[in-house]
Amino acid sequence: MTEARIIADLLRQFGTKHRQIELGIGDDAAVLQVGGVRLVWTVDACVEDVHFRRGWLTLSELGERATHAAASDLAAMGAVPLATLANLALPPGFSRAELKLLAKGQARAARALRCPVIGGNLTRADALSLTTTVLGTVSKPLRRDGAKIGDELWLLGNVGLGRAGFLALQTGAKVRSKALGECIAAWRKPRARLRGGTSLIGRAHAAIDISDGLSLDAARLAAASRVRLVIDQQALLGALPEALHAAAKVLGETALTLALVGGEDYALLATGPRHKRPKGAAVIGEVVKGKGVTLRSQGRQRALPARGFDHFR
Amino acid sequence: MTEARIIADLLRQFGTKHRQIELGIGDDAAVLQVGGVRLVWTVDACVEDVHFRRGWLTLSELGERATHAAASDLAAMGAVPLATLANLALPPGFSRAELKLLAKGQARAARALRCPVIGGNLTRADALSLTTTVLGTVSKPLRRDGAKIGDELWLLGNVGLGRAGFLALQTGAKVRSKALGECIAAWRKPRARLRGGTSLIGRAHAAIDISDGLSLDAARLAAASRVRLVIDQQALLGALPEALHAAAKVLGETALTLALVGGEDYALLATGPRHKRPKGAAVIGEVVKGKGVTLRSQGRQRALPARGFDHFR
Repeated sequence: MTEARIIADLLRQFGTKHRQIELGIGDDAAVLQVGGVRLVWTVDACVEDVHFRRGWLTLSELGERATHAAASDLAAMGAVPLATLANLALPPGFSRAELKLLAKGQARAARALRCPVIGGNLTRADALSLTTTVLGTVSKPLRRDGAKIGDELWLLGNVGLGRAGFLALQTGAKVRSKALGECIAAWRKPRARLRGGTSLIGRAHAAIDISDGLSLDAARLAAASRVRLVIDQQALLGALPEALHAAAKVLGETALTLALVGGEDYALLATGPRHKRPKGAAVIGEVVKGKGVTLRSQGRQRALPARGFDHFR
Repeated sequence: MTEARIIADLLRQFGTKHRQIELGIGDDAAVLQVGGVRLVWTVDACVEDVHFRRGWLTLSELGERATHAAASDLAAMGAVPLATLANLALPPGFSRAELKLLAKGQARAARALRCPVIGGNLTRADALSLTTTVLGTVSKPLRRDGAKIGDELWLLGNVGLGRAGFLALQTGAKVRSKALGECIAAWRKPRARLRGGTSLIGRAHAAIDISDGLSLDAARLAAASRVRLVIDQQALLGALPEALHAAAKVLGETALTLALVGGEDYALLATGPRHKRPKGAAVIGEVVKGKGVTLRSQGRQRALPARGFDHFR
C-alpha cells in the first residue's frame, strides 16, 4: 500500500462532487464556499513513536510543532487561519503539569499564527498524540493542479534541515557541532509559512507544502498539474543553507539527499511565471511538458523517484 | 485529574475571547461568525482499546459509528453539517480491504447525515483510531448555558441501551437474549440526532448531547447554566425502552443505573418551556434554582454524583 493508492481508494468511497465543496480529497486542504466566503480546512496528526519520540523535544515544543505543522497546509493554499481545534490523546500517567506544557506550546503557536485554539477533544490512548484541525479563509486558493509549462519552480524556505535534525535525534549523533544543533532546532521548531503562502497569491500558478519530502511533494504537484517538474541540482544546492552541507558530512549523507527526502521543514514549493516571482523565492527548476520529476545536473536529466516520507510504503 | 479540571487548565492557556469566535472551549462545539454565517465546528476521536475493541464491531460499523458520534455534537447545537475531515491512524498490517470497509462505513454515515467526507489525513500508529472533525452551520446555536428556572427537562432518544450493549460486549455475555442483541446493536450503530437537534431550535433554552452519561452530561448543563436539574426517577424509568429493562436483568444491573451512566446512545438532553416542548421529547424532570443534579423519587431528592464516562477520573 502506498498513500497515493489509499487516497485513490478513499476517493472512490467518498466521491468527489459535493454541494458547496470546491476542493476535496487530494490537495493540501479542503475548500468550501459558505456565505460568499471561501473556507480552507485541514487536519494533521502528530503521533508518539511515529512522528516523534518523547525525548526528542520538550512537550511545549511538541505542542508548538503540531500546531505549525497543521497550519502549514493552509500556508500552501495562501490561506489565513481563523482558529484551530485540538484532539489530545493522552497516555496513562500523563500529568497535569505535562498537559500544561503541551498546551503552552500550542498557545504559543496559536498566538504566532493568530489562530486561537477554540476547542477540541480529550481522550485516553496508549501513545501521546495531537490531532489538529485548522480552519481559515482565502480569496483564491493556491492549488496543486495549476502549474503551467514554462513556469519557474520556486522554493520558499529551507529543505533538509529538519530531515538532518531528525536523523541526528534518531541515531543519537553525539557530535555537538553547531550545524547539527541548527538542524535539530529546525526539526523541533518548524514554522508554518503563512506569509510565504499569501505572498504567492496572484503570483504562483500552483503550490504545495513540503511535509513529506521535496521529491515526493514535487511528484504530487506534478501529477496533479499533469506536468513534469525539472529540479536543477546546482540551483537546489545553491539554495540550501550552509548548516545543511556541514551537517550532511557529520551524518554521512549528502546535502542533496537530505534536501530531496527532507520534508519536515514545511517549506513551500510553488510554480509561477518569472516576472511574478515573489521576493524570497529561490528558483530551483522549471515546469516542462511530461510527467514526474527529474533532476538535471550538468546537462543530463534523471528521473527522480517519488521518495520521501510515505507512512504506508 | 478530571476532564473538567483539565479543561479549566486548557482554558487558562488558550484564552476565551477571540475575534469572530462566539463560543469556544466548554460547549459541545465551537461557534464562529464568518461572512455573516455561523459555523459550528467539532472534533471527536474513536480509539482502539479505549472506545472500542476490534472484535466488537465490523470495520464498516466502526467508520459509521465514529462519524455519527462526531456529528452528534452538531446535533446538540441544532446545527446542520456541511462536511467532515477524517484523520485515520492505521496500525501496521492494516490492509487495503480493511481500509475500504472502514471508509465504506464512513461514507454510509456521510450520506445519511448529508455530510460528505472531503478530506483528512493518514498516519501510522500502534492502535487504530479515527479522529473526525465536522463543520456545520446554524442560525442560533443551542448552548449548554441557557437553561432557565421553570424549564422542563427533555430527553430526545434513548439512554442506557448503548451502555448495556457495551457491558454485554465487554463481559462477553453469552446470553443470546433479544434485548441484549438490541443493546449491542444500539452501541454499534448510534445515530447523530440531527433532526432532533433542529427541532429544538426556537423551543429549547439549552441542550447537550449525552455522550458521556446522562448524569455527567446533565451536571455539565447544570453547571454551565448555573441551575439545578431535577431528574424524576419515575419519569425517566417510564421513558426507557423495554429492552433496557430486560437487558439490565441479564447484566445484573438496574435499568436506572444503565440510563444514568450510559452515554453512547447520543441522545439529546434539553430544557425548555412546557408550551414549546417538541414532539418526541420525553419530560424527565425540571430546572430549579440551585446547582448540580438531583434524582427525585417518591417525593425525596438525592444528589446525583456526576458519574459517567470520564477518561481522566
